[in-house]
Amino acid sequence: MYNEKGKYALEVCFSPLSWPLYKKEPAVIIVTDIFRATTAMCAAFQNKVKSIIPVAEISESIVYKEKGYIVSGERDGKTLDCAEFGNSPFNFMQPRLQGQTVVMNTTNGTQALKMVRGHNNIVCIGAFTNLQAVCNWAMEQKQHIIIFCAGWKNRFSMEDTLFAGAATRYIIQKGEGTFHTTCDSAIASADLWHMAENNPRLYIEKAAHRHRLKKMGLDDILDYTLQLNTHTCVPVLKGGEIVDISA
Amino acid sequence: MYNEKGKYALEVCFSPLSWPLYKKEPAVIIVTDIFRATTAMCAAFQNKVKSIIPVAEISESIVYKEKGYIVSGERDGKTLDCAEFGNSPFNFMQPRLQGQTVVMNTTNGTQALKMVRGHNNIVCIGAFTNLQAVCNWAMEQKQHIIIFCAGWKNRFSMEDTLFAGAATRYIIQKGEGTFHTTCDSAIASADLWHMAENNPRLYIEKAAHRHRLKKMGLDDILDYTLQLNTHTCVPVLKGGEIVDISA
Repeated sequence: MYNEKGKYALEVCFSPLSWPLYKKEPAVIIVTDIFRATTAMCAAFQNKVKSIIPVAEISESIVYKEKGYIVSGERDGKTLDCAEFGNSPFNFMQPRLQGQTVVMNTTNGTQALKMVRGHNNIVCIGAFTNLQAVCNWAMEQKQHIIIFCAGWKNRFSMEDTLFAGAATRYIIQKGEGTFHTTCDSAIASADLWHMAENNPRLYIEKAAHRHRLKKMGLDDILDYTLQLNTHTCVPVLKGGEIVDISA
Repeated sequence: MYNEKGKYALEVCFSPLSWPLYKKEPAVIIVTDIFRATTAMCAAFQNKVKSIIPVAEISESIVYKEKGYIVSGERDGKTLDCAEFGNSPFNFMQPRLQGQTVVMNTTNGTQALKMVRGHNNIVCIGAFTNLQAVCNWAMEQKQHIIIFCAGWKNRFSMEDTLFAGAATRYIIQKGEGTFHTTCDSAIASADLWHMAENNPRLYIEKAAHRHRLKKMGLDDILDYTLQLNTHTCVPVLKGGEIVDISA
């Protein structure tokens, strides 16, 4: 499966802490934070939000709020005081957000985005909901691909890893020899996805443990985040904003 | 399987970069570097070496050499100029080493050991060859257990992860409710081991890729490093030296 003759390399970075080992430019970086930043971003673009400004610091969110922007954001599952709503994908489906710019602040996802911005990197947003769309687009760029898992507070997280594995399998298979991987984390991800794909929800519940999911208020959105390929959006970072390049 | 009522936590740290997230003291830390530091250490103790002094810097190895110690060591698979031999487990089976102290310097393993030393931590050495012995001993300490993968140049490595998975499964099953894990990396490791255990050699070759293994000169020792429970030694760090506490 992992044809070593492929022209472009595919790698998986399990957590922001490991990112310094991966900084190969130029590359396409697919950032994922399944619970919930990148799933929420995809929901927003599916709802025709115009753009998302990802910010990492709460002070930045406050400045945008004062300028009149729509501000969303959380820390550890709690909506920020300066935010109108939290990061559940359902919040981004409000019709009033169509055509609007939303400022988003999350525990892991936007921190990860801040980290990977580089002059020669293309940064895009991946979730189960837009998996094939974002992978197809990434492959068309004809560059190395790095799947960057936002993780949970810098730790390895199962849900992001499963996305990485599903994307790895898709890219290697669809790429037919254009992409290869010699990256142990890509191979491990792909094998974990192989174990999980028949029933990702059951697998995730075993892994991430009901109490963590409950604490994160995820019970209601678990099925939503694990839907495959329901969206066609390809959110890409352009300057400081994320826009849907497929729109 | 992962009984959440267990009294002691079991965690897996995938690479030295992630170690700062794990520093819970007191705990038993099982350090593993399958290719090849910890496998070689177990081979040494099986051969009745008296003790091993792990050093992380080449300058330290040179100082010990000048003091008349037997010095072994490598960087990236190449024997150090100051060393009598490299880190293949076979080198540690020489009869002349029995009863001797050996100074050891490796790319990943001794660096990892240096990192985990803490006042309240117990640090021991794990390999497939002493898996049950080291796990049984670790469980007897009645503390939290962290399995620390030395990795490959700070990256996730499949062989260390498979050891972590085998150890996780063993400890959770054997512990019968004394140990639990809510750690995604422990659960991922255990599942990867579950996929690999029928034919670890085939699995590792797929994962770590023949060219990396060849480059590391591992072709001749692969079968040796993947043997399960052939050794009964329990190497433990005492002061600056590793000794076999089962001897």
